[in-house]
Amino acid sequence: MRDFSQNHDWLSINTATVRKQQGAEVPLDRIIDQCAERGIRAISPWRDQVAGVGIERIARQLKAHGIGLSGYCRGGFFPAPDAAGLKAALEDNRRAIDEAKTLDAPCLVLVVGALPGALDGRAAYKDLGRARAEVHDGIAASLDYAREVGMPLAIEPLHPMQAADRACINTLEQALDLCDELDPARSGMLGVALDVYHVWWDPKLEQQIERAGRERLLAYHVCDWLTPTRDLLSDRGMMGDGVVELRKIRGWVEAAGFQGFSEVEIFSVLDWWQRSGEETLDTCIERHRSAV
Amino acid sequence: MRDFSQNHDWLSINTATVRKQQGAEVPLDRIIDQCAERGIRAISPWRDQVAGVGIERIARQLKAHGIGLSGYCRGGFFPAPDAAGLKAALEDNRRAIDEAKTLDAPCLVLVVGALPGALDGRAAYKDLGRARAEVHDGIAASLDYAREVGMPLAIEPLHPMQAADRACINTLEQALDLCDELDPARSGMLGVALDVYHVWWDPKLEQQIERAGRERLLAYHVCDWLTPTRDLLSDRGMMGDGVVELRKIRGWVEAAGFQGFSEVEIFSVLDWWQRSGEETLDTCIERHRSAV
Repeated sequence: MRDFSQNHDWLSINTATVRKQQGAEVPLDRIIDQCAERGIRAISPWRDQVAGVGIERIARQLKAHGIGLSGYCRGGFFPAPDAAGLKAALEDNRRAIDEAKTLDAPCLVLVVGALPGALDGRAAYKDLGRARAEVHDGIAASLDYAREVGMPLAIEPLHPMQAADRACINTLEQALDLCDELDPARSGMLGVALDVYHVWWDPKLEQQIERAGRERLLAYHVCDWLTPTRDLLSDRGMMGDGVVELRKIRGWVEAAGFQGFSEVEIFSVLDWWQRSGEETLDTCIERHRSAV
Repeated sequence: MRDFSQNHDWLSINTATVRKQQGAEVPLDRIIDQCAERGIRAISPWRDQVAGVGIERIARQLKAHGIGLSGYCRGGFFPAPDAAGLKAALEDNRRAIDEAKTLDAPCLVLVVGALPGALDGRAAYKDLGRARAEVHDGIAASLDYAREVGMPLAIEPLHPMQAADRACINTLEQALDLCDELDPARSGMLGVALDVYHVWWDPKLEQQIERAGRERLLAYHVCDWLTPTRDLLSDRGMMGDGVVELRKIRGWVEAAGFQGFSEVEIFSVLDWWQRSGEETLDTCIERHRSAV
């Protein structure tokens, strides 16, 4: 297992972690500068943040700083109530793949979607099996294009508490079953983004990480599970402040062959998003060394 | 599949559903009268509510009304930071088994516990594997006594969002693996309490319900998953108000051999606990007929 205690060479910042600083939205180019000032070698930016500044400008800025990507957030949201919606989702995923390519991302992270409309409290249907079938078909179609341009797709299993509204792929086992079905050759073009926040509770986690192996482990995200957790989406903790066995899980991931970045992704409307970006990033670095 | 539309013969009320009425705690004897007035044939009471009135008095009242139990809530919380704590938990479970016997319950529901102290925000340790081992040993020990007195134990897998603080058994598959280990003969003395709220998202739900079969399905709980869900514990929905496919899941459960009560368990600090008990119970009856 790699020693993270001496430096932060393998730290990546998911830019959602500092998208809000002292309660206010901060543009991505400012975030990139803040990371560069601290010698952070990788980020994982969100599409809307990239679009807010302009993708060509972001690409140039990253190159100038020598900062790479650990992933691109995000494609997915495949289910829809009708054929037009399904088609629009595929087109949007194609654009996301193109953007990931422009930014030279190692993978496009997929938050696959769930019951369409549920995010706004108005599910168009309740048939979870249908949503899962639409996700299957959406990934299959997107994978064709992803292979063409050479952009690996990383399915992110989301915590079951987000099964209704954000992603109906909710365990690593389920994600890997889908990978095996759509990419039996383990080509490296389809795998998972493993976020400890979503999977730490899973009694089959160690077993399924071993099953995933190097070819399927495309990204690794960290934060922590707080007790109590006050919000289903935006109350993630800083590494070390919660109950997740971060060292143990990273051990499993590395034993399975993963040697990439440890990406910090913290949605924290009540805490870290109220602090300065400097404080949040400095704490990420410190905890990367001491807790991850 | 049974037709629930014509009556509420198979409705049971978990008394947590109406433990607060218009914001105020209501004693269990009053709740039992409210159920009796509506021809409700079964309840599932909580230990603290029973103790608040006195168990002998509750036993007599239930008998006078001809109301039975669909389960008794609850045993469990086995993990502890030290040997004294583990022993105290076993003793408490023994008392819970005795109480369940006094009330002639068909099973004692087990919320097995998780990281000790996490419920108060101060986990004594983070080793989830240790907590699971302590749960294993606690159930094994309790099962010996349960067999002696003839009180089946029903493990309730809890939603993964409660894995840190309430129960580290989080899928039906995991619960059934434990049942198979501790009761390979499928004696009927160890099984599960299946609550749709905790398991509705599970991609292996249909398969594992079939695996459970009649001998393991000791209780069936319903409510609904709301979008958005505003609280990890106390924002459950009335059946029909959320996204759970209640008919489909009951179909699976009955196909596996379950023919018992459909028990309504709704923790709803923001909504139903603010209404009158009469309104809540009448709505449970109506939705039992129309949505379950």
